[in-house]
Formats: sequence, structure tokens, C-alpha cells
Amino acid sequence: MLASRSLGVIRGASSTLSSYNISARAMSNLVPAYSSYNNLNVSQPSEFVYNLELNRPKKMNALSMEMWGEIGDFFDRVGEDSDCRVVVLSAAGKMFTSGIDLVDLSELASVVYSDDDIARKCTVMYNKIRRLQKQFSTLEHCPKPIIGAIHSACIGGGVDLICGVDIRMCTEDAWFQVKEVDMGLAADVGTLQRLPRAIGSQSLVNELCLTARKLKAPEAEKIGLVSRVYANKEEMMAAALEMAANIAAKSPVAVQGTKINLAYSREHSPDEGLDYIARFNMAMLQSEDVMKSAMASMDKTAPPPTFAKL
Amino acid sequence: MLASRSLGVIRGASSTLSSYNISARAMSNLVPAYSSYNNLNVSQPSEFVYNLELNRPKKMNALSMEMWGEIGDFFDRVGEDSDCRVVVLSAAGKMFTSGIDLVDLSELASVVYSDDDIARKCTVMYNKIRRLQKQFSTLEHCPKPIIGAIHSACIGGGVDLICGVDIRMCTEDAWFQVKEVDMGLAADVGTLQRLPRAIGSQSLVNELCLTARKLKAPEAEKIGLVSRVYANKEEMMAAALEMAANIAAKSPVAVQGTKINLAYSREHSPDEGLDYIARFNMAMLQSEDVMKSAMASMDKTAPPPTFAKL
Amino acid sequence: MLASRSLGVIRGASSTLSSYNISARAMSNLVPAYSSYNNLNVSQPSEFVYNLELNRPKKMNALSMEMWGEIGDFFDRVGEDSDCRVVVLSAAGKMFTSGIDLVDLSELASVVYSDDDIARKCTVMYNKIRRLQKQFSTLEHCPKPIIGAIHSACIGGGVDLICGVDIRMCTEDAWFQVKEVDMGLAADVGTLQRLPRAIGSQSLVNELCLTARKLKAPEAEKIGLVSRVYANKEEMMAAALEMAANIAAKSPVAVQGTKINLAYSREHSPDEGLDYIARFNMAMLQSEDVMKSAMASMDKTAPPPTFAKL
Amino acid sequence: MLASRSLGVIRGASSTLSSYNISARAMSNLVPAYSSYNNLNVSQPSEFVYNLELNRPKKMNALSMEMWGEIGDFFDRVGEDSDCRVVVLSAAGKMFTSGIDLVDLSELASVVYSDDDIARKCTVMYNKIRRLQKQFSTLEHCPKPIIGAIHSACIGGGVDLICGVDIRMCTEDAWFQVKEVDMGLAADVGTLQRLPRAIGSQSLVNELCLTARKLKAPEAEKIGLVSRVYANKEEMMAAALEMAANIAAKSPVAVQGTKINLAYSREHSPDEGLDYIARFNMAMLQSEDVMKSAMASMDKTAPPPTFAKL
Amino acid sequence: MLASRSLGVIRGASSTLSSYNISARAMSNLVPAYSSYNNLNVSQPSEFVYNLELNRPKKMNALSMEMWGEIGDFFDRVGEDSDCRVVVLSAAGKMFTSGIDLVDLSELASVVYSDDDIARKCTVMYNKIRRLQKQFSTLEHCPKPIIGAIHSACIGGGVDLICGVDIRMCTEDAWFQVKEVDMGLAADVGTLQRLPRAIGSQSLVNELCLTARKLKAPEAEKIGLVSRVYANKEEMMAAALEMAANIAAKSPVAVQGTKINLAYSREHSPDEGLDYIARFNMAMLQSEDVMKSAMASMDKTAPPPTFAKL
Amino acid sequence: MLASRSLGVIRGASSTLSSYNISARAMSNLVPAYSSYNNLNVSQPSEFVYNLELNRPKKMNALSMEMWGEIGDFFDRVGEDSDCRVVVLSAAGKMFTSGIDLVDLSELASVVYSDDDIARKCTVMYNKIRRLQKQFSTLEHCPKPIIGAIHSACIGGGVDLICGVDIRMCTEDAWFQVKEVDMGLAADVGTLQRLPRAIGSQSLVNELCLTARKLKAPEAEKIGLVSRVYANKEEMMAAALEMAANIAAKSPVAVQGTKINLAYSREHSPDEGLDYIARFNMAMLQSEDVMKSAMASMDKTAPPPTFAKL
Repeated sequence: MLASRSLGVIRGASSTLSSYNISARAMSNLVPAYSSYNNLNVSQPSEFVYNLELNRPKKMNALSMEMWGEIGDFFDRVGEDSDCRVVVLSAAGKMFTSGIDLVDLSELASVVYSDDDIARKCTVMYNKIRRLQKQFSTLEHCPKPIIGAIHSACIGGGVDLICGVDIRMCTEDAWFQVKEVDMGLAADVGTLQRLPRAIGSQSLVNELCLTARKLKAPEAEKIGLVSRVYANKEEMMAAALEMAANIAAKSPVAVQGTKINLAYSREHSPDEGLDYIARFNMAMLQSEDVMKSAMASMDKTAPPPTFAKL
Repeated sequence: MLASRSLGVIRGASSTLSSYNISARAMSNLVPAYSSYNNLNVSQPSEFVYNLELNRPKKMNALSMEMWGEIGDFFDRVGEDSDCRVVVLSAAGKMFTSGIDLVDLSELASVVYSDDDIARKCTVMYNKIRRLQKQFSTLEHCPKPIIGAIHSACIGGGVDLICGVDIRMCTEDAWFQVKEVDMGLAADVGTLQRLPRAIGSQSLVNELCLTARKLKAPEAEKIGLVSRVYANKEEMMAAALEMAANIAAKSPVAVQGTKINLAYSREHSPDEGLDYIARFNMAMLQSEDVMKSAMASMDKTAPPPTFAKL
Repeated sequence: MLASRSLGVIRGASSTLSSYNISARAMSNLVPAYSSYNNLNVSQPSEFVYNLELNRPKKMNALSMEMWGEIGDFFDRVGEDSDCRVVVLSAAGKMFTSGIDLVDLSELASVVYSDDDIARKCTVMYNKIRRLQKQFSTLEHCPKPIIGAIHSACIGGGVDLICGVDIRMCTEDAWFQVKEVDMGLAADVGTLQRLPRAIGSQSLVNELCLTARKLKAPEAEKIGLVSRVYANKEEMMAAALEMAANIAAKSPVAVQGTKINLAYSREHSPDEGLDYIARFNMAMLQSEDVMKSAMASMDKTAPPPTFAKL
Repeated sequence: MLASRSLGVIRGASSTLSSYNISARAMSNLVPAYSSYNNLNVSQPSEFVYNLELNRPKKMNALSMEMWGEIGDFFDRVGEDSDCRVVVLSAAGKMFTSGIDLVDLSELASVVYSDDDIARKCTVMYNKIRRLQKQFSTLEHCPKPIIGAIHSACIGGGVDLICGVDIRMCTEDAWFQVKEVDMGLAADVGTLQRLPRAIGSQSLVNELCLTARKLKAPEAEKIGLVSRVYANKEEMMAAALEMAANIAAKSPVAVQGTKINLAYSREHSPDEGLDYIARFNMAMLQSEDVMKSAMASMDKTAPPPTFAKL
Repeated sequence: MLASRSLGVIRGASSTLSSYNISARAMSNLVPAYSSYNNLNVSQPSEFVYNLELNRPKKMNALSMEMWGEIGDFFDRVGEDSDCRVVVLSAAGKMFTSGIDLVDLSELASVVYSDDDIARKCTVMYNKIRRLQKQFSTLEHCPKPIIGAIHSACIGGGVDLICGVDIRMCTEDAWFQVKEVDMGLAADVGTLQRLPRAIGSQSLVNELCLTARKLKAPEAEKIGLVSRVYANKEEMMAAALEMAANIAAKSPVAVQGTKINLAYSREHSPDEGLDYIARFNMAMLQSEDVMKSAMASMDKTAPPPTFAKL
Repeated sequence: MLASRSLGVIRGASSTLSSYNISARAMSNLVPAYSSYNNLNVSQPSEFVYNLELNRPKKMNALSMEMWGEIGDFFDRVGEDSDCRVVVLSAAGKMFTSGIDLVDLSELASVVYSDDDIARKCTVMYNKIRRLQKQFSTLEHCPKPIIGAIHSACIGGGVDLICGVDIRMCTEDAWFQVKEVDMGLAADVGTLQRLPRAIGSQSLVNELCLTARKLKAPEAEKIGLVSRVYANKEEMMAAALEMAANIAAKSPVAVQGTKINLAYSREHSPDEGLDYIARFNMAMLQSEDVMKSAMASMDKTAPPPTFAKL
């Protein structure tokens, strides 16, 4: 099925993608360094582009503790993997993800219903929550841009996950649900912290988190949660991979510097953000990438510049 | 008139609301604990839902100092009133509110035109402003969600007020006006502080506050100030009460935890917000509400869970 | 060419503008205090309104170091120029600006390719970047509102510039491009710091900054980067000048207080923002402008109030 | 006993105090507005000086919930009581305070051992803690300076209390103990939050809070917790009242402005603190107190200036 | 040599320590879980007390990358090791530490002198620095208190290390040196960030960091860098172990809660710190440790309470 | 008189200073670039060391607006003057400074007693205060370390000034007075913002600011306001210049990096401070100064390294 999807991508985007050296073969090639995951596929559809695929389709990509840990491990490692400049995050199977795997909640229950003193139980719970949080925060701390390509259902923990992504796109049949309130808890692995930064309407953020109603693709686009909606998964993946290849062809110094400084600026005043990037760029502006990029932008007929790994 | 409106609500929403036990009788029942207010009506349209109604219709619901104080008192007390889980804030009469009552401004003038030393006058003014601010800040600090249902005009202090609400909806004939700049002053009880967090377009926030132009319902929805626009007050109230009943039927631990953590996260970095909710949930995840909710979500045929008061 | 545009403005907006005393003569009158600039025109189209025009049309208004310095000097001085209450920022010629002047980058190259120790080069670079940043930050620190009227291309440094403006409007043929990533660098004079505050959709901010794709006027309006799109430059200028005149007719105490407190509130929690404005207004509410404005709003037939300079 | 102490004060400090109009009679005069407290004595030893005395000597001034509430009420009200410019906080009886009243802890136990759901118990506890915290935070928010005069034991909740005081002095036999860790809990009403700001040595702060060891007067002075140590309570009270009278004789605009801005500056960067005081002083420097003070400082032979109430 | 030191401890402190069950045997017993370290000894001198000993005496305990990593690993793991409640950090051999191992700097040089593009070298350097920083930050994030017992020289990286310790004590012959400025760099693994919080005199912090002068034990005590100075290592170790045993005998809920909240409070305003501990204690006050501690403090003749592991 | 003082310096410190090439001639040489000041002397006592001397001795170095402006101008320019690596700030004549020049206050009075509207007067005052503040903030923003050498009286504005200095030393007859409260105002150019960061005892900071009592040299040293007290001005100047020469002989990359990062760290959490210096050092560690310094520290017999200008 992966193969046929890959073909679809190529068919739908062949003219634009060909210059980025994407082939069906490349896409189906799993990256060996990440081949040990049980719940994720990591392939390299084009140069410097990785496709991280949630791959537990029979379980609707439910986020098990193991999968969660693999996601954290992947983004931790890919941050220093110079063969990767952009990550496309998508999912195999019928839906993006049904959210946290309820099976794992039984482990939680065993803590709750033990006879331990409450302070000990709280400490166990705190440590568990922090561990999950840190695994998802790797997306934010990873200096490589992440494009989320979401189809069909993205529920509960899935929303926490995609809130950590940089650019979001989805299919027409996609829908999002901040389901935690219906599970008797306040969402604690990212949605409440990041959704208010992701979309502009506070009233809608509150409504989505307090009512757990479904947010469908057109409204998701209107309110800015996703940048664009595509007719189907094939078209979306083609667009995502093209955007990824496009970004991957740019100077990684510029691209990663942009992500790093956008993240810093969101949490600091403009004055602080400006000082930080001045410290960053005082060195980075001396990079050869600046001159290479400047020349390329002046001479459009020359071959595109190649940038050293980063 | 209240009665006929209540009937309207029931008629428009009978099918969905019936399961939440809302009756016209309940709606018109004022809650005794809050019956002493001169400018507010507090009724209980359905279980755990309060409807706070600005009730000075002959004065266009102008915000007098007395009314202002009653609003602060209400949200202060309702925060610890376990019979209430959601508040719908609406207004009786022709419009939502014409803003601050100009009669009260004469008191201000008497301070300004006294012969006191400027430092003394400043201290009096500072204390007065702070008191008003604190009364409106009770909306933000109240852990119960507040749904604002706005019809017709919402002017000046009214905008300050509804900026403190969690979810906003309005009628087609509603309009909003940040009028303070036309009164010779910078808005100082909430609009300048909260409107930039409420809607995403900085350019529009600035324009609205600097020009005092009217913002009409369709644009208010487009820019995200309100979540939804309804044809008339009846439909809006039906929708607001249905949403309220819907939220009130969920675990109050989850709902209040969601509001509390959304508020915290808006003013802190994701890393800080995540640590805060981990401290919060290390205990709250041990609540019986989690198990009750989890079971209910697995067995949709069972009766909805009832949650202990909070 | 300036003259014909001015006429266009008058024609398009004659009925509404006449009451603000705008004439073609006034518009073409340069303000003597700012006549020494080589790259900027400062005219006074109506009372208390200045029009700052980028005026290097043959160079596509490329932002040279000299021009950059003049912009910083202008907003620094106009902040305390009591003849100005609102600034309209527009550009002469075919486009708004093509961005930073590449000629100036050669100066940068001479630093990069010198034999100096890296620490010395970094210090030179840091100081250069900080100087440019401070020149653009004058827009934010200037207490007078700034309306940006953008036509055709607004590229690279131009986006950094207009991110510092309070209210943005543009023509139908306008387009914006965060081009720095294509030049091999992370944008370091304002875009990465201010664009996330200007528009609500984080996904789009990231996409624009990481892909350098063009953002066209309709999408710019939809996502809230600009408040309004106009058919052509004439109509836009008429609207900008009318809005400016409208604001300039209000109390400058109220207008500047609004801008100052909006800026403060964006970087502080509501509680902090409320305390700050209470300190501000404890004195400002004693201004005669409050009484003048209050009276004018009660007696609409009286002539509009005149406010002392500020 | 109060009378004899008062006499002692007068004897020990008669020469310096006489000019401030302090008399034994004044000191023993309780201030009627605050006479309803069951656990506090509020007297006025000299003009504009209040002496708040913990007055539960038979119970070692154990901090009962009632006393706690009275302290909060007092500082809340005295902040706007223009007859008071400085507060001296001292204690009647053998010791300053033995800390929280253990009797009240039984109420706590009844919550802990109830059958309620943990989330409900947590909410009750949270609300209780917040209430106690807010009552002690009134010291910090009160704009009038507070001088703490501590004798003998100051334990547990007593340290939380005196951490909110502006200037601390003590007797030679005084000792301090952060006792909470020995009660099985982290101190939660101020010590952990304010002690690190009160003294410079982080190692000692940590040691005191983690070991609950007694800190005796000489070391308390050496590390800066108290400004000065006095031989006995009489001498300390004389010094405290003289310092209070001294401060009370200054412009209240200057004194309260100093406290307010010191508090603000501790929680903000110098740049932010400077901007805040500029907003404060833009009005306050226009006060008549500045001219009166300036003249008095130039002509030392003139009678001391009298300042209007604030 | 370890054995003789242990004996010394016992001899010097036998009376006080006996009640804590410390024996020479226990002290020399290495904790198996941490026995794989090449540069550290981890022993358990008494119940719930670990002694982490820098153990590269032939190399003057120079901080090699390997040792650095082991320190990070130890504090990371010990944070969740319920057999440990307090850590004493000391060093074997002639001095505490001579600072960073210069051998490792050659690795740094190989990066600096490579032909790579500057942006790539910067990224490598940034990642290296961050890794070292994170390894030392584990001390701060570890919820168990850490007592630093420093003898003889503590230089460069050693100061960075002990700035992360909670309570510091030293021998009379100890001295400290912020040596980085003499190595041509600004200290970047903790000293510049934590020393200003550790001691009160800003002038001295600046002087120490800018001049690299030696700070000897008596001055270190006077300015509060260390809590106490002891005649020799034996006495210091006895005191450190006694303090550790003392803390270890208290409720770990109280002790760890105290450290966690002190750390939080240092970086937040009192109001924020108070809210955070209220969220913490709303659950922790329900712990059985509170009742056990309360009872023990009332009945001094009863055996000391035993607390469940945490 | 300058000459004789210079001689004193040489006599008192000849042995240690000789290696730094200090001569009486150098000291008395004014630096031409700063010779236009009317109230300041800028000399160069040794290589890379500037001595800024307040030089209005007949007026007790009262801080006139002109002098204030010159101080701001000096530190602004010296920050980028690569011939200077350290500044010693001292004063000519009988005392350090008597504080703000009362003559200038008359200008203030003319604003206060004008008939202008209060809002206009406030704006004038705000702008004046901000200008003064910014002139003193240049000390903090200047990357070169500043050593304050204070003799005799340092009053009012003088304390604001020396709070911006990095290292403070004084003579035995020196005394400090936060006099503003006696002038009827809260100190608004730095003392209230920076003194709480300069010394550890909050109680003493409050006392000094609220009582305006004199702080004499011994107590100033005890509480850490100054690092050291010297018998007289000659000895102090010798020590200050020796310390300055010592610092000036080190790598300016290291020294300035230390000051910059200490300043940043004071206003940010350790985690933020660590990230900032990692961005700083990712480039600076590649400087040749690191290798030069490392070699010099290994081979003590070699001549001291010379560092390129910065």
C-alpha cells in the first residue's frame, strides 16, 4: 500500500517534483538508522527529506507508550542527523491516529488503585506525565522543520502531537478532536499549551478544548490550524513532499536558524528576540551559505547551489 | 419577557436539550443565593448551568458602579459554588450594553476638579481603576467556563467585559465598539490587555482600538472574536444553553482543569505550561471522574455518568 | 507623478476628506523639518497627519543603509513632534520595496572575508545587526500610530519594516515575501520576531518564513496581515489618509495611550498590563481631553473639539 | 504589661522621640477602627505610625485561622487608611509567635480523612492554601512600609509572616526556624517564595529550609535577614518606633512610591523597572511634596514640612 | 585512603552520628547500581544518604568528558532512586578539582581548526556546550538535596559544578577560582548563570568572574558562598554526613517539595511561586507523612517516624 | 592635583603595576577623543584602561543635565572604542558627588507650574525621566567592565550612578545616601531598580531607601555594596588601576563575554542564561584568544599574550 501511495504522489506531482530527485524507489526506501522502530516507518522520499509515518494501522495508529517513546527518540536523533533537513509527519492506514492507546491506561490505573500513599502516587504520576511531555516536546526542540500531513481522524493525543508540528496541512475528510475533556481530564501533553499559540481565535480554542467537538477540515483551514486542505491523501502527500523538497533545497543554516528563532521569539518580547537572533546571526551571516544563496538568487540560470551538511 | 424568551429557547432546541433536563420552569427560576442583585438576574436554566443576565434594560444595561460590583461579586462567589459548572452571560432588553454609565463619571469629575494635590488625586484614581479592573478580572480567575451571548450593541466597557469571557457568540445584528478612544482615554479595564489575545490579527486589533469603528457580527466571526453568529437572540440563547448543558454534563474536574490550564498557558512558555499541568494532573488523574468518563466513552449505551460536585 | 497621485486621492475621497481640510496642496507640501532625507519624503496631507513616503523609486525603494538610518531617525524624532499625531507609511514608484539593497551587502562581505579573528568579526556583525534592528524598532516605540499602505511588492526587509506598523492595508496587486531564507539567512530585523504576533495562524507564519513563498493580497487579508485590500493605490491612499485624519481628530492623549498600552500588553500578562495602564491613567484621566471628548460625544451638533498638542 | 513596655520605650528613646510627638498615652491608645480584632492590638504610638501587635500571648501568639484573617484584613484596610504611614509589627508576650495553631490543623485533617474524591479534596485544599497565602500577601501589596520587630521565638508560619515585612530588626534572644519540613510539608505561605529574595546566601537559605535548624539573632544579622539586633525588646521597640516616626515624617508620596517601586523592580528587569517608575513619577513629581521637601532640605532651620494625607 | 577518612569521620562525629546508623562499613560500601563509573565513587554512608565522590585523584579530579557524563548520569538517575534522599558531593585526593581536563580541549581544537564552514562549526560547538550544560543542570533538576563538601582547590569547571549544589561547606584550606576568563572565554556551564543567585554581593560576583582571583574559605563564608568552614576534611565530612543524615530522617515529601519549590520560586515572582506550591501542596498535604511528622513533633519520646520511600 | 594623585598611585603600587606599563605620564594624558566634555576628564592611565573622572569639583561634582548627558555619551561611545577594555570611574575634588544639581530642578519646576494640561506635563516629565534613565543605563549596556572608585560623599543621583557600575570599592571616609525620599520623590534613575540586585539583604535595601540614612564604608563592605575599603583615595586608586590593568591584560573576548552574560543571566532563569551563552560561545570559542590564553596559562615563563583589539 505504501508503494501505491508513493506512485500516486509521483503521478500527481511529477512535473514539479522531478527536479528534486524524488523517485518511488527512494520513497519506499526505509532509512536504516531508524529501522528498529516497531510503530514508525522512516523513509527518505527525496534528498534531505525524511517521511516519518505513524505505522500501527491495525490499531488505528493508537499512541502506545512504545510508539510515544519512538517518536521522542526519532525527533531527538534527527535533530543532529545531517542527512535530514525536513521531516514530513504522516500516518499509514485509515486515519491519522485515534489518540492515546487505552490499553496503556490500565498501567495508569494500577498506580491509582494501589495502596501507596498519595504523595508517592503523585510523584509517580508526575514523572510519567513529564516523560510523555518531553517526548512530544522533541518536535519543538528539533531544529529541522516538520510538516504535518493529516488525513481522516486526529483525536486526543494526536492533537497534542500535531500541535508540535511547524506547518500543518490536511485532507478534506480530516477532522480534529480535543477529546481529553470527555475522558475526565485536562489535556496534559501539549494541546492546552500549544493550541492557543497555533490559532488566533481564543474563543474557538476555548470552545474546542471545553466541548470536545469535532473540528472539520474546512473550519480548520479557516481558523488557521492548517495552512491548506487537499482533496485526498495523494494530493496532500504530493504537496507536502514538494514543500519539503523545496525547503530541503535551501540553505540548512537559514532554514534551521529560522525555526530556532521563530520558536524563541514566540516566548520572548520583540526586543529580546531581536537580541537573540543578533547573537545567532553574528556568526551565521559569515557562513558560505549566504554567499552561495546570494549568487544563486542573482543568477537564476546557474544550477541550484549545494550546501554542506548540517 | 423572560418567560417568552425561555419558551423560545425550548422550542428552538427541544430535541437536543431534553436530555439535559432543561425546562422553562428551571430557566425562569432565579437562584436564591444571588437574588439580592439590583442589576443582574441569575437563573438556572438546567442542571449546573447558570444564566447571568445583565438586567438594567431601561438604562440600556449601562454599567453602573453598582452593577460592576455585582458582576465582580457574582464571579467571585460562583467560582466556589458547586451547583454551577458553566455560566452563560447574556443581557435583557434591547441591547447587550451601552458601556459605562456616564452618571458615574460625574463622581470621577469631582475627584479631578477638587483642589487636592495631584499625587493624592492620582492615588484615588489608581485605586478606583484597580477596583474596577479586579471586578472584571474575576471572569478570568473564575474556574467555571463562561459563555458570552451578545445581541445588538456591545460598547466600551461592554467590550472590556466580554473580553474576559471564554467563548463568545452573537446575533446577526450584534456590533462591538471599543469606544474609549472617543471618550478621550485609553481603555483601562481589559480591552487593551485581552483583545490582542482574543483575535489573531494585530492590525485589526490596533485599528479597532485606535479608530473606535463599529465591528459587525459577520466580521467579528471572520476574525474570530466570536465563534458563531446566530440569526436572532432566541437561536443564540438556545445554542448557548445547549453548549452550556453539554459542558456541564462533563466531569467538572476535567472542565475546570482545562480552563485553569488554558489561562496559565497563555501567559507562560509551553515548557512552563507543561510543568504546571503535570503538577495539576499528578493528583487530578487519580480522580474517580477519569474512570467514570473512560467507562462512559467505551459503553455509549450506558446512562451518562454523574460526577460529584466541585 | 506625486502630484497626479495626490489628485487621485482627492478625487476618490473628496466627500469624506473635505471635512478634515485635506487639499492637494497640503499633501504635496513637504515638512521642512524632515526635508534633508535623501530617500524619504515627509509631507503633511492634513492637520496632524504626516505621510512618510519611501522615495527611491528608481532603485525600487531598495533599503540602503542610508535609507534605513533615515527611517530610524524619522520615527525617533516624530515621536516627540507634536505637529504629528498619525503617520501614513507608503512608497513612491512601482513597488513598495524590493528589500535590502544588495549593494550594501558588499560591505558585509568585506567584514566576512577579512583576516580578522572570528570573535572580532562577530562583534562587528553583532553591532551592525543591532543598529539596523534599533532603527526599525523605532516604529514600535514611537507613540504615534502608523498606518502602512502597501502596493505591489513588499519583499524581505520590507516585511521586517511593515511588521512594525500598527495598521496595515494594501492594494489588490500587493504581495509579500519573507525572502531571507532564500538569501541563506534567518530574517534578523523583525519579521521572525513580529510576524507571529501579527497574524493568528502559526502554521502559516512558519510556512511563509520557511518557504519564502509569495503571499498575495487576498490571502494577506484573509489571514489578517492586512485589515483591508483596495482596488488600487489611489483608493488605498484615500482610505489610509481618511483613517489617519479620523484618528488625528481624536484626543492625542487617548490615541497615544492606546498604542502605548497595546504594546505593553502584548508582552505582559493581563494582570501586569492592567496595573501598568492604571499607573498610566491615574494621571491621564485628569486630562482636559476627557471632558472635551465626553462633551463632544454628548452634543453631536457642536463643532468637534480641538485638543492641545502632545 | 503593655503599659510598662510603653514606658520602657519612652525611657529608652525619650530624647530622640520627643520631636515626633510620641507619648505613652498615644501608644496605649488603640485605634478604634481596628478595635474589633480578637487577636491583634492596633495602637498609634505617634502621628501616622500604627503598631500592630500580635496579641494572643497565652497561646504564644499561635497563628489561628482567625488571627490570620485579621492580619489580612488589617493590611488590606491600612493600605488605604490615610492616618497611617508606617506600621510596626511586633508581638505581645513571651515570644513573637510559635507558628501556625495546631488546633486548626484538625480542620485540615477532617478534609484529608473524608471519603471525598481526591480531586474534590485537592480543590478544597488549594482554595484553603490560596486564602492563607493571600492574607499574608497583603503585607507586600500594602503601600505603607512595615517594620518587623521580632523578639524571642519566630517559628514556622511566623517566618512566612515576617518574610513579607519590609525592614526587620530583632532582639538578641530572638531566633527563627523554618519548621515546616519537620511537619512533613514544604512551607507554602511565603517562606520558600520570599526568603531567597530576603537574604543573599543561597546556601544558607537552602540549609535553613531543608534542615529546620534554628537561626539565632547574630547570624540573622550577619546574613542580612535583620538589619539590626537590639539588647532587649524595650530597646528594639524604641528603635523601631523611632525609625517609624522618622519615615512617617517624610512625604508619603515619596515613601509609598519607594515601596511600590522596590516591589515592582524585584520582579522585573532594570529596563522594565525604570519604565514603570517613569510612568509613576511623570505624575508624582508634580506633587507639592517635592517642592515642600526640597525647601525643607535647603532651609534646615524652618519647621519640618507637613504633608497632606495619602 | 578512603577507609582512613571514613574512620576519621566516625571518630570526629561518633556521638552525634550513632543515632543515624552510620558505620565505617556502610560508608565504604559502594552502591552497586552506580559501580560502573570510572571516575566516581558512590557509597552509602547511612540510610538514604549517598556520598558521590569525584574519584580521579591522580589527575587532580580534572573534569574529563567521561567524568562529566557520569556526573550527569548519576544525578539523572538518583532523582528517581528511592533509596537516596540526600547526596553529599565530595572529592577524593588532594583537591576538589582542578577544573576541566585540558586533554579534552584538544578535541575542541580539532573542530575549530577544521576546514568546515563556520556555521557548521558553530552548530557542533553549540551542541557540545549544551550537552555539557545539561549534564551539570541535572544537579538543579534532581529533587534530592545535594550538599557540597569542598576541600582545597575548586577551580574553573569545579565552580560551575558546585554552583548547582544546594548547600555548600568547605575546609579552611579551600579556595575557589572562576578561572575561565584566564582561558580566554566566558564561563559557559553554570557559573555566570548561578553565581549571581548564590551570593548577595553583585560587586564581588563581578570581581570574581572578571579577575579570576582566588576566593579563600574565610571570605567565601563571609559572602555566603559556603554556609560553614571546617578545620579539615574530616570535620567537614562528619558535619556534611550528619547534616545529610538529619535531612534524610525527615519526610522525603517535605524535603523534596522544599527543594522543588525553592528552585521554582527563584525564577518566578512571589505570586507565581505561591500559586505553584498551592498546586503542589493541594495533593501533598494529604500525605501520611504530614500526620506522622505532626505526631512525632508532639511526642518527642516516641521513636522517630519512618517514612515510605519516594 | 591630578599629578600628585597619580604619583601616589605609582608609589603605592609600583611593583605590581610596572609590568602593565603604567606611568604617571600616561595617567595624566587625556584621551583626545573625549576631550570636549565640560564636566568629565577621560585619561588613559595604562594600556586599554580609561579613567573617567567626574570633574566639577567646585560644584561638588553635582550632576548637572550637561554632565549627565556627557556620562551617557561617554559610555555609549566607549562600548565600541577598541582602545579601551576597562573603565575606572572616579571623581575629582572633595567628594564623589553631591547628587543631582538642584539648579536643574528649576527647569523641572517650570514644567510643573506651567498652565499646560496635566497629560501634556506628564508626557514632558516622562520623556525627561526616560532620557536621564537611558543615559545611566549606558553603564549597564557598555560591554567593557566598569570599576567604581568612590571617596567621601556619594549622594542621591550618585547612588543611582554607581549602581550601574560592575565592581565597587571605596575609601574609609566614604558614605552613601539614597536621599531621594527626603526630596519628596521615589528614586527614579536606577537605585530602586538596581540596588536590590547589588546587595543581598532586602531588609537593608528597604531601610536605606525608605529612611535615607547614611551608609558608611565599613557597613557598605559588610553588606557587599563595595568589594573592598581602602585607607584613602591614593590607595584606592592604586588598587582600582591595578585591578583594571589586570583585567585589561586578559582576552577582551573573554572579559566582555563575561560581563555581557552576567548581565543577561541576572534577568533570566539559569536555563535561559545557559542557552544564551551557548549561542554566544558557539562562535567565541573559535577565537584565537582561547588558544593564546590556553598556551599562556600552560607556559608561565613566556611573555604574556597580546590580544587583538575588540
